Amino acid sequence: MNAMDVISRSISFLVSAGEIKDITGPVAEALAATGLVDGIVTIFVPGATGAVSTVEYEPGLVHEDIPKALDRIAPEHEHYGHDAAWHDGNGYSHVRATVLGPSLTVPFSSKKLVLGTWQQIIFMNLDNRSRERELVLQFIGK
Amino acid sequence: MNAMDVISRSISFLVSAGEIKDITGPVAEALAATGLVDGIVTIFVPGATGAVSTVEYEPGLVHEDIPKALDRIAPEHEHYGHDAAWHDGNGYSHVRATVLGPSLTVPFSSKKLVLGTWQQIIFMNLDNRSRERELVLQFIGK
Amino acid sequence: MNAMDVISRSISFLVSAGEIKDITGPVAEALAATGLVDGIVTIFVPGATGAVSTVEYEPGLVHEDIPKALDRIAPEHEHYGHDAAWHDGNGYSHVRATVLGPSLTVPFSSKKLVLGTWQQIIFMNLDNRSRERELVLQFIGK
Repeated sequence: MNAMDVISRSISFLVSAGEIKDITGPVAEALAATGLVDGIVTIFVPGATGAVSTVEYEPGLVHEDIPKALDRIAPEHEHYGHDAAWHDGNGYSHVRATVLGPSLTVPFSSKKLVLGTWQQIIFMNLDNRSRERELVLQFIGK
Repeated sequence: MNAMDVISRSISFLVSAGEIKDITGPVAEALAATGLVDGIVTIFVPGATGAVSTVEYEPGLVHEDIPKALDRIAPEHEHYGHDAAWHDGNGYSHVRATVLGPSLTVPFSSKKLVLGTWQQIIFMNLDNRSRERELVLQFIGK
Repeated sequence: MNAMDVISRSISFLVSAGEIKDITGPVAEALAATGLVDGIVTIFVPGATGAVSTVEYEPGLVHEDIPKALDRIAPEHEHYGHDAAWHDGNGYSHVRATVLGPSLTVPFSSKKLVLGTWQQIIFMNLDNRSRERELVLQFIGK
């Protein structure tokens, strides 16, 4: 039997303004490299204008339906106290990030993430500009 | 002192379209069966049209108030790019699931989930049809 | 090498109706006191009218922008089935809490929470009255 351990990894990538990126592959590769068999991975965004979740990654949802829902929660063209003070025009980005959340924990068993067949892990760059992003992957398992 | 371990369990049930189901009992029973005393459990939906959260489980919230809020985030009767491509009519289900999230981590201490007195763990079947669901419970603790 | 362990802590504070409170300091202090170096902490709200997330903690977002978004998701002045049954006037509080979620998991490495420079951990008292709150911090690491 393996001993329990914690292993830290990170993944980096460039994303454009508003991009929703499928990160399932990089997370699965990082898992494989840890050698862990069973456990959980916490995928964390160290930043205030990004979020993580899952989705069936297809163009209709990613390019039209989810952006429209985000605009219902925090419309891009609206007054924001954040913008009035800081003039960076991304008040809506911050609000969406707080509502969606910066953290996702996914179990893995027998070295595989336990995702559904049509379910991918996504990073949502909610900011109003392209960003180089680095996400923390904290693996706990054996 | 017990050693740390990871233990995988699952729970299965049938849910109708839009049903919000109290799963506190099955999660607590699964915890008891692990023999673990202190730790966390990650409750994960392997699928793209369901979500997990907590609520005071009473009819007003479960049958009226939460469904109305979900319809504000992603209205059922609206155009969805997902539906235009796939014709399964559940674009709103996918969007709601991404916003709410497929994962919930709950601590336990002295063999008990640390929930509030009026707080239950819920699975939300956001799909537009009844489904047989299997959730993954990943326990980490000692 | 340290052995993996689970350590339970809690933090308590008074919050006013609708207050969004920066709890980064107390969480970091609790982490330091555990002696753990690498792992995760699950911050959990045992109650049905509070939530945890992260934000760039500045007045525009905290006092204006996020409250407005919460009012889009679950307007304060709206009919709620919860209020019709229980007459406590906080149906909107419950709905917001379910959508935002009671649990946040944050990694730590080398004894530090891996937050972004402009990212703070927040507790959101979504209730319509001031409350004494106690949050559970469940640390898993080595």
